Amino acid sequence: MIPPGYFPVEPWAVREPKLDLNLLGQTESIFALSNGHIGWRANLDEGEPHDMSGSYLNAVYEEVPLPYAETAYGYPEAGQTMINVTNGKIIRLLVNDEPFDIRYGALLHHERVLDLKTGMLQRTVEWESPAHRRVRVRSIRMVSLVHRALAAVLYEVEPIDGDADLVVQSELVANEPVSGRINDDPRSATSIESPLESELSDTSDRGAVLIHSTKRSKLRVAAAMEHVVRGPRSLETRCECFADNARFTVAGTVEPGKRLTIVKFVAYGWSSLRSVPALRAQVDGALASAREHGWDGLAEAQRKYLADFWSRSDVELKGDDEVQQAIHFAMFHVLQSAARAEQRAIPAKGLTGTGYDGHAFWDTETFVLPVLTYTAPDAAADALRWRHMIVPKAQERARQLNLRGTAFPWRTITGQECSAYWPAGTAAFHINADIADATIRQMWATQDDEFAHEVGVELLVETARLWMSLGCLDPDGRFHIDGVTGPDEYSALADNNVYTNLMAQRNLRGAADAAERYGERAGHLGVTGEEVGRWRAAADGIVVPYDEKLRVHPQSDNFTRHATWDFAGTPPETYPLLLHYPYFQLYRKQVVKQSDLVLALHLRGDAFTPEEKLRDFDYYEGLTVRDSSLSACTQAVMAAEVNHLDLAYDYLGEAALMDLGDLEHNTRDGVHIASLAGAWLAIVAGLGGMRDQRDVLCFAPHLAGPLRRLRFAMIWRGRRLRVEVGAETATYELLDGEAMDLYHEGQRVTVKPGQPVIMPVREVPDLPRPHQPPGRAPRRRH
Amino acid sequence: MIPPGYFPVEPWAVREPKLDLNLLGQTESIFALSNGHIGWRANLDEGEPHDMSGSYLNAVYEEVPLPYAETAYGYPEAGQTMINVTNGKIIRLLVNDEPFDIRYGALLHHERVLDLKTGMLQRTVEWESPAHRRVRVRSIRMVSLVHRALAAVLYEVEPIDGDADLVVQSELVANEPVSGRINDDPRSATSIESPLESELSDTSDRGAVLIHSTKRSKLRVAAAMEHVVRGPRSLETRCECFADNARFTVAGTVEPGKRLTIVKFVAYGWSSLRSVPALRAQVDGALASAREHGWDGLAEAQRKYLADFWSRSDVELKGDDEVQQAIHFAMFHVLQSAARAEQRAIPAKGLTGTGYDGHAFWDTETFVLPVLTYTAPDAAADALRWRHMIVPKAQERARQLNLRGTAFPWRTITGQECSAYWPAGTAAFHINADIADATIRQMWATQDDEFAHEVGVELLVETARLWMSLGCLDPDGRFHIDGVTGPDEYSALADNNVYTNLMAQRNLRGAADAAERYGERAGHLGVTGEEVGRWRAAADGIVVPYDEKLRVHPQSDNFTRHATWDFAGTPPETYPLLLHYPYFQLYRKQVVKQSDLVLALHLRGDAFTPEEKLRDFDYYEGLTVRDSSLSACTQAVMAAEVNHLDLAYDYLGEAALMDLGDLEHNTRDGVHIASLAGAWLAIVAGLGGMRDQRDVLCFAPHLAGPLRRLRFAMIWRGRRLRVEVGAETATYELLDGEAMDLYHEGQRVTVKPGQPVIMPVREVPDLPRPHQPPGRAPRRRH
Repeated sequence: MIPPGYFPVEPWAVREPKLDLNLLGQTESIFALSNGHIGWRANLDEGEPHDMSGSYLNAVYEEVPLPYAETAYGYPEAGQTMINVTNGKIIRLLVNDEPFDIRYGALLHHERVLDLKTGMLQRTVEWESPAHRRVRVRSIRMVSLVHRALAAVLYEVEPIDGDADLVVQSELVANEPVSGRINDDPRSATSIESPLESELSDTSDRGAVLIHSTKRSKLRVAAAMEHVVRGPRSLETRCECFADNARFTVAGTVEPGKRLTIVKFVAYGWSSLRSVPALRAQVDGALASAREHGWDGLAEAQRKYLADFWSRSDVELKGDDEVQQAIHFAMFHVLQSAARAEQRAIPAKGLTGTGYDGHAFWDTETFVLPVLTYTAPDAAADALRWRHMIVPKAQERARQLNLRGTAFPWRTITGQECSAYWPAGTAAFHINADIADATIRQMWATQDDEFAHEVGVELLVETARLWMSLGCLDPDGRFHIDGVTGPDEYSALADNNVYTNLMAQRNLRGAADAAERYGERAGHLGVTGEEVGRWRAAADGIVVPYDEKLRVHPQSDNFTRHATWDFAGTPPETYPLLLHYPYFQLYRKQVVKQSDLVLALHLRGDAFTPEEKLRDFDYYEGLTVRDSSLSACTQAVMAAEVNHLDLAYDYLGEAALMDLGDLEHNTRDGVHIASLAGAWLAIVAGLGGMRDQRDVLCFAPHLAGPLRRLRFAMIWRGRRLRVEVGAETATYELLDGEAMDLYHEGQRVTVKPGQPVIMPVREVPDLPRPHQPPGRAPRRRH
Repeated sequence: MIPPGYFPVEPWAVREPKLDLNLLGQTESIFALSNGHIGWRANLDEGEPHDMSGSYLNAVYEEVPLPYAETAYGYPEAGQTMINVTNGKIIRLLVNDEPFDIRYGALLHHERVLDLKTGMLQRTVEWESPAHRRVRVRSIRMVSLVHRALAAVLYEVEPIDGDADLVVQSELVANEPVSGRINDDPRSATSIESPLESELSDTSDRGAVLIHSTKRSKLRVAAAMEHVVRGPRSLETRCECFADNARFTVAGTVEPGKRLTIVKFVAYGWSSLRSVPALRAQVDGALASAREHGWDGLAEAQRKYLADFWSRSDVELKGDDEVQQAIHFAMFHVLQSAARAEQRAIPAKGLTGTGYDGHAFWDTETFVLPVLTYTAPDAAADALRWRHMIVPKAQERARQLNLRGTAFPWRTITGQECSAYWPAGTAAFHINADIADATIRQMWATQDDEFAHEVGVELLVETARLWMSLGCLDPDGRFHIDGVTGPDEYSALADNNVYTNLMAQRNLRGAADAAERYGERAGHLGVTGEEVGRWRAAADGIVVPYDEKLRVHPQSDNFTRHATWDFAGTPPETYPLLLHYPYFQLYRKQVVKQSDLVLALHLRGDAFTPEEKLRDFDYYEGLTVRDSSLSACTQAVMAAEVNHLDLAYDYLGEAALMDLGDLEHNTRDGVHIASLAGAWLAIVAGLGGMRDQRDVLCFAPHLAGPLRRLRFAMIWRGRRLRVEVGAETATYELLDGEAMDLYHEGQRVTVKPGQPVIMPVREVPDLPRPHQPPGRAPRRRH
């Protein structure tokens, strides 16, 4: 946990006024910078102390063996783990021969600020060396959102109380020792010692390049640096390089009040195909671009990029500054994870840490893309293009499993299934419907025919084919999907998981629609009218179990008949339950790790009546322990829909503060991108009631908790729409684009450019607050 | 597979007239000798060639790590694997300096005979050395059923065509190199290089001793040998020893027609507690006993032991010599596996090979003990005493799983759970009811109050408590057991598995009965009348799902609603399915590895009507692929009960010939003790229709297939009963003991000493033969 107040509340920055070494791991994740291609954990410039040093390149991984004491057919033999690549962040400092290390001497001032408008991390330090020499150090770091291959650091040292002999050593370091921290948590990563083999190291005038390759995955990684130095005339500089290390050294005597300033440009490149000279040229080219733009150019481009992003995605909350800050922070990290991923996966932790081995899961399609589709649609399209790229691997996996179509991996970096526990991996086939759902949403929200042609149709067709081979049409025309695992990881291998079935239904219908609309493309994929007919018949026959006695939907067949978990007998310290109870017990009882049926209520709201939603929501509230970060946001959305507005507000707080509060105690492994994205969903789909009904957006907005006003912007079919919600009215305004229709509380309205539409906010009935399992209620925020 | 005719058909021996090196592994298992304490695989005397050299001591194992790519709470961290201990079988021979090795020179004659009446393995060889010197070698080997710690070899060499310089080297060899054979089959064993560390090696006058200990499990193992030599006067002898090897050498020149004869006595001892000197004294003492009895004394005692066994367990079949041989072979191995196990486990492969790592499973209680209870009741009692010994470990495991009572391990050597795949291990809780069932049967069949007091009551009470914590009584008084795995390993984690529920019901009622009968003992275990009442209420409320539409019992909830496996699309070479299809697919479809519901029809026949049995049996015939050796015998029993007599006969043949025919292609890993025991069940419970109804035995005997007469003996409450079945009559005769009542076809009759009762055999209706999955019908034997 991070104590409240550790980061002062302010809307556009996360500021750490004082360093707490016990929170080093958490802040390394929280202050991490990334553009989706490069990720730099917020390690201190001087490299040490650190919790986990991390420099990542999207999809640069090493193969690791997956051992099984009892193996079986179809188990993946090799896993993939994201590796710590060459660290280009390091800038060491010596002050009168004393190394600047905050653990020695006296740390008089230490502040870090992540500026969410400039996209830079600034650090200011006043330090007194053990020999009582004071210096002021300021560093500003960025990972460029505009120049995908570039990161940069501006580093300034200023003696305070007398001349100082300063030596600044800017380095590239490969094969950093693996962090010694002990971690039994299965959600952490495999750590690999020295994953890189040196292929080239060389110096240039004011920089150096290191090229390495990974041992088993055979990826080649280049990192290069170049420096601009400002300071006294008499500075000495030197470049040197070794196999795993390159260093640029500046030495000189600096008077108090004067500064030694170094700008470090770092370029990264990697490839599984390109040669050493080609990669070297690539990073040298990126450095040339950096030199051309200079620090100021890069900084200005970064600011502009973010201004554009905020103009189409900003969420403003009046009345809750803490959540205001958190939602800005959240959106910033969502953007960072995806902005320049460009046909690579968006990992569960982005590029902020090695949690879950850097793997991407269904989180991307179900929680992250619903945000990006409406705020950064090109990034969403690129994420789906990555899925499309791995279609051949998913087809091969399906064949191996005796299935048709695609079986997308539960967890992966480059497309191979890396899940070593199949009941909660391979069996979670819903990921295929989740990908289809994201594809349908993207197609609805962008009407991008090129995307549909190149990516969408095939994704929908191939996933539909999977469902046809997974499900079984019985003689009564009912389509069952048996023995699969839904989103709730405290259940597994169940029949007719409602979420899976309804999402498969959407997938089948979406594929049928797409095949009819893009007939030629579908024809190339071998789709016939007869096949489309079978998809529709299966979709129409999909089984949705219902418990007539309890009048709720069981999560899966038999679920509501199972014993309820003994919540009263479960000590608080045994959460998360998965670390303290066997799966055997969790699976066979009514206990829910994360929204499953309730997620179906959200994503397939059209399949439930309002009364069913309310009863189902209340029922599952009593069973859901939120041992996953992928739950609070969905509970917020559905709580809002069924008129538990204060509860929705509490869940919004939990989703938004997941990492700023380290609520799950594992932020040091990386931030929870999906939960952060979920904070946007909690606001826009929750409080805003936004639902995309194919050709029209629907809203049912309300304030909740302490909010006095809520305003958010989103992109839809090339338009920029802003919704402002007050206590009594909601205002819809087109910021650009053509007139559009939308629904407000079921009422169709037309919004025209320059003509905001003002609608009354519906009164909300006063409902009794449902109960959560003892001790598992969200923190009351109102 | 072993080709038909490889072993000529004869009733009391298994003879191999000619060696086929391709079948070396299979014959090493088939000819293995054991007394349940010591196991010697039938490696050639000279040690090489071999498929897998094996000398085993029951419960001598090494700990092995159980790796998990994704671990979770409650997974066992360490496994156990049976190790190859010091090999005392080896006797090497040099003929004029040429080592006797059947791969060199010319093998003129090679015959091995396992004599099922003497309990010895005899080998006769005529060999011409590469230098054209002929010798005749005869060896006879036994593992004493009477002297638990002893084995012996009589080894004779006779030059045929001229004087020969003979050197015989009799050895003890520890840490033999692990067999190089490659095996991906998950049913095979973990192999460990050099598991033993030397603690002592020493020679005596005509022998030697080696003492080792295992590295992690810390078990101390002693092996000692001593020799008696007969031959020409001028023989030279020598003893020598090294850390892992001891050798007794005899050298001399022998004329043609004269013999050099060596008797080798081998004694084994092991302990986790006793010191090196104590163990040395123990094996020296055993050798003293061997010297005293001499070869002839040991051989005679072995013969007598077996004569006694056959007198109470022999099964005679007139009309099928192949099955006659097989059932003798089968009973011999069942006896060997258990005779002197004495409060150790009976592993799935006995001590004939390292298949399944030497682990014991539910096989023991469900297939082996039902035979031993009626043929060697003391051995059955001892096996249950072992279960009682591990009650504390099973209680600890239950606590770890958040359960009460005992959770016996799915697979183990000494009581720790060693199953690394919980859905088919820990979740198979039926093993607890299986242990209870064997306990109830033992108590019924022996009326041994001491056993009940010491072992039975606690086993029943603790397993009953497990069920109470596993199951859930719903408001309607129905008792559900959810999320468990039944016997069929092609299904897992299902609700209300009929077999599990009905066996739990028997368990609960058996515990209640025992608690009432042995009130004081139960009182010590904390049992109250109220607890007994809860057991009875749960038993009365047990859920037995029924498919009203199909009019069959689903194996578990929803089972008959699942898609049927695509048998038509399954190529024959993809059996066993588990090696070619993912569990995911197997679990969610109607395909049955081994009898599950049908086993319930047998063991809980009282819970089904005859019509239900017939419909259920026929239904599951169409789904059962028999990828397990634990199926044919049960199918034989139930086929007979529902009047598919010829089919019953075919399944009997499969069960009985499992190893002599190597039907599952893994006999080289060890013989299938449970299937061999199942052959007896197929005859006695199948054709004989024997059921134990607590205070009375019931029979419904019929001939089947080519049989013209069937006769079997069994023990019941101290009596020896013989049943002889002809085409038209069945005769019940008491061979010793007091008069007893029994049922013949539902009719009560009294059998008195000296007064055989003759009853008519009921005519059997002509029923259509049910269908098995394509290609999976048993071989027609009639």
